[in-house]
This record gives sequence, C-alpha cells and structure tokens, in this order.
Amino acid sequence: MQTDLVAALDIGGTKIAGALVDGHGRILVRAQRPTPAREDGDTVMRAVEEVIGELTAAPQWGAATVVGIGSAGPVDASAGTVSPVNVPGWRGFPLVDRVRAATGGLPVALIGDGVAITAAEHWQGAARGHDNALCMVVSTGVGGGLVLGGRLHAGPTGNAGHIGHISVDLDGDLCPCGARGCVERIASGPNIARRALENGWRPGPDGDTSAAAIAAAARAGDPVAVASFERAAQALAAGIAATATLVEIDIAVIGGGVAGAGDVLFAPLRAALKDYATLCFVQHLAVAPAEMGTDAGLVGAAAAALARGR
Amino acid sequence: MQTDLVAALDIGGTKIAGALVDGHGRILVRAQRPTPAREDGDTVMRAVEEVIGELTAAPQWGAATVVGIGSAGPVDASAGTVSPVNVPGWRGFPLVDRVRAATGGLPVALIGDGVAITAAEHWQGAARGHDNALCMVVSTGVGGGLVLGGRLHAGPTGNAGHIGHISVDLDGDLCPCGARGCVERIASGPNIARRALENGWRPGPDGDTSAAAIAAAARAGDPVAVASFERAAQALAAGIAATATLVEIDIAVIGGGVAGAGDVLFAPLRAALKDYATLCFVQHLAVAPAEMGTDAGLVGAAAAALARGR
Repeated sequence: MQTDLVAALDIGGTKIAGALVDGHGRILVRAQRPTPAREDGDTVMRAVEEVIGELTAAPQWGAATVVGIGSAGPVDASAGTVSPVNVPGWRGFPLVDRVRAATGGLPVALIGDGVAITAAEHWQGAARGHDNALCMVVSTGVGGGLVLGGRLHAGPTGNAGHIGHISVDLDGDLCPCGARGCVERIASGPNIARRALENGWRPGPDGDTSAAAIAAAARAGDPVAVASFERAAQALAAGIAATATLVEIDIAVIGGGVAGAGDVLFAPLRAALKDYATLCFVQHLAVAPAEMGTDAGLVGAAAAALARGR
Repeated sequence: MQTDLVAALDIGGTKIAGALVDGHGRILVRAQRPTPAREDGDTVMRAVEEVIGELTAAPQWGAATVVGIGSAGPVDASAGTVSPVNVPGWRGFPLVDRVRAATGGLPVALIGDGVAITAAEHWQGAARGHDNALCMVVSTGVGGGLVLGGRLHAGPTGNAGHIGHISVDLDGDLCPCGARGCVERIASGPNIARRALENGWRPGPDGDTSAAAIAAAARAGDPVAVASFERAAQALAAGIAATATLVEIDIAVIGGGVAGAGDVLFAPLRAALKDYATLCFVQHLAVAPAEMGTDAGLVGAAAAALARGR
C-alpha cells in the first residue's frame, strides 16, 4: 500500500527544485530547473511548470495529496503571492493559484524559504526535539525562521523569522531594504568580503574574494580576515540574542555557506553571545550548525504542508 | 449565583497590588501594600501575604478558584520562582509555592509583568481584536509582551517580550543588564532625562529633571529636549520593527509614564518606524497608546490565569 506523498517545491533565485516527499521526509522523485531570474514572470512560471511536469509524470504522482512551497521572500501566504527580491518578474505573483492549476487542484501551502529550512531542521535536523528554536541561513543573504511552543511560527504572511533585516546598529550603514545596520548588512557573505577588502585584505593569485576565501585567510591567521568574521559574529550574536530575549528560544541553528566557515565564525559567535544574551532566561542558549543539506528547502516545504494537513 | 473569580496579584518594585477579578475583568475587591523592596525576602513575602489576607477576608473569596500573578521580572514560570531586578531579597524566590500555601492550595499561574499588561491590553485594551501584537511599557524601564496567533506568548519561563533588553546599537553604551545599546538604555525615562542633561538642558526653578519635565520642555520647543525624545523614539522604532520583522505583529501598543508624553514621543516614533520597518509585511504596522490604566497588571494577571484554566 502506498502512503500519501507531498509534492514539494523549493523556489530560489538560482534554481527551482521539486520533489515527491514521503511522510518520513524521504525524497522519492526529484526535478530541477535553473531559475530564469531575469526573465518575465510567465517565463519563470514556465520553469516551475516544467518541474511540476516531471513530478506529475512520475509513477508515484497518484499518491501526492498536497503541495508545499518554500519560496524566496517576501511571500504573502494569506494572498498566495510571492515577490522574491532576486526575481524581479514576480511581484505579487499568484504562485499558489498557478501551482494549484498545474497540479490538478491539489491544496497548496506556501511559506518563505527561511521558514522552510526551519521546518526541515526541526523535523529531522539540529533543532529536532527543541520546542523553541531559531534556524538561520547565512549566505548571500541572511534568512531564518522560528519554532515556538513546538510548532513552526510562520506568521500570518509566512515571513516570520526574517532576522537578516532587524537592525542591530540603528545608526549603521544603509541596507538595500531601506533600514540601517541590519544583521544581513553586517554578517552576509558579500559583506564579510567587502569589509575585509575595505580594510586592506587582498586575495591570493586566484583572485578569489569570496567569503570562503576570507574564511580560509582567517583560518591561516590573517588579522583583517579574522576581524571581519568577528564583526559578522557580533552582529549575528546581537540578532540571535534579541530573538531569544523577545520570544524565548533555547537553540539557534545556523546553516548556509558562511556557516561553512566553521570555527572562524562559530567561536567568536559563541563568545559574543555571552555579551548580548544577558538575561537569565537566555543565558543558556545553544548555537549549533545546521544538519540538513541542500534538500532542507524541499524537506521543509513538505513538512509545512504535512503540518497544515493535520 | 456567583461566578468564578480570579485572585490577581501585581507585584512590582514599588507596590504589591491584589484584587478579586471577575470573568469580565471587573475588579470587585482590592488590596495594596508598598513593596519593602530593600528588605529580606521573607519580609517582602509578608507584604504579599497581607495583601492576600485582605482578599481572603472578603465575602467574595469563596468564589476564587485560581490565582494569577504578574511579577516584575525576570520570572521563571516553569520553576515557579521570581528574581525581580528591583527586589534584591528575591532571587529564585519560590513565589508560586508560597502563594499557593497562602491561598489554601489554589492553582497559581505566574507570568512576567510585561506579559501581564499585554494580556490586559489584548483582552480589553488597545490590542483587542489583534491576533499579533506587541504591548510595551516605557517608564523607569522598558518592558513588553507578545500576542501571537491570537494567544498570549509568554514563553516557557514567562519572560517573552523583553524588548527593553534587545540591542539596537551593538557598539552602544553598556546597559546594567550587561549588554550594549539596549532599547531601555536609550529609551527609558531616566535615560531620556540623562541625555537631555548631558546635552545642556537645565531644569526650571522647581528642579524637576524627570522625563515628564523633559517632555514639557520638548512640547515648549526646547531643541535638546526634543532631540532626547527623538533618540528614544528611534530606539523604540528599531526595537518594534525588529519584533515585527521577527514574529509578524500588526500593532504595537505603548503605555507607561514616558508614553504619557504623547506626541512628543509618538510623532517621531511613527516617523522612525518608516525607517526601520521596511519589508512589505511590516510596513503597515500601527502604533497606539495603551488604553488600560494602572489596573492593567491586575487585569492581565487575571486574564492569564483564566486562559490557563481553559
């Protein structure tokens, strides 16, 4: 006997991934297309429909009962629309209606991508067993999501947990979002690299100026590279401490490319957290690297769709 | 026929208030003592027991079925203990056990005072009808609480919503809590007054250097007084925007003595909110003055106890 499956979609600025996922979070069928992010909205949607087409052609499709979408944000779960910053052709795009039509009328659950990875880490990753958790992605941007009282807290529009755009430096540098001193403006990969370059760090013969190159330099002891990661860690710590102080979480799980720097990030982050998480009810906050890999978005979208159905 | 009543306690650094509250939030019996805040823990507890004694002596006491306590924090609802910053004799003090004993074994619900005023504003005040709200007190300190998804979000230890101690200025002035640039360190009444004095404002013949005096000077157009309130408003805006961006709220309700300054605070606060609440899902955040008066703590403690019983 075949059990119910979820059709999961993970929609980002680089790729559109799809999968059929079972109730244990196992991926049975996969499909993927590059995101034609600079094209018009209908062209982007056609790529989504191609992914869905591969899933519906799979023999297991008949068992799919619900669709879960994790999308680059902002999303509007109440309206069923998405407006991903990196996909300018989609502004208030009615993704839920279009996906419902493409799947023969299945119910569709939409959440932001930060919420999706949080659902995945809570279901099967580093936040498993934690009733109150913040999960983050530190990469080109900084995103996140919350588990509160044992349940995913997506918020009315599916955007809760946007820790990258809280200000921890109210007089700080202008962020593309319009605010100043956002966590992302200080701690994202491109900002770690920018700060190192501004302070005199220079790349090796390969010319690599990515955050990964800065991390390698920091591991080798370059003081400018170390300082840039320390500043990122300080901003992340202030943001994580703020989150804990506001909603009470007991673990912060951090994934994404910048988290791949390992101790270069995590050691100063844990130290800085002691400076900002000062009240007694947040002093024992743990920090852990994410455990789910690149499938986190798909598995999390499936988890959210399953939770909706319950 | 008499309906069930709640015995409510509102415990602060200045006074210990008690009441018998009915299911409509009406206060039927009151009692109050000054808090002997500098005395040892048992002396403080005796004042609480005197308040309870007046309530148990009332003819309505027989209808009391549950006790709700809102206490200056931090509290630990899971352990049943309190450690109010301004009552040094109470550190990990087993308030729940002691109140249960003093009330003949009634069930006792404990929450922080910020959570209590939030429960009151959500039940009968400015947050009524809002499923996602932040309620704040801006006074000697800055406290708060959250309503998420239609329910009070107290957090596992009853301390959620501590917006006064999130950092909005990660390199800023040291806060007594140990962190830097906390909202309270910039926006509380004493800090508004301190900043005005440091920048050259001088009191009138009455020597009044309170935040209320600064507010009066600001209303009269004194530029230093205006600037001190604007800075407080900026910090509050950054903190409120951070909260909205993290958990999705649609209203921030602000009470307490400093909120009594009215437009001197609210006008720059609404302006600054546009600078920090930039993502689409937080742009329509409303700000409103609190509606509950000095009974908010009692009414909210009663609301929380009633909600627990449901």
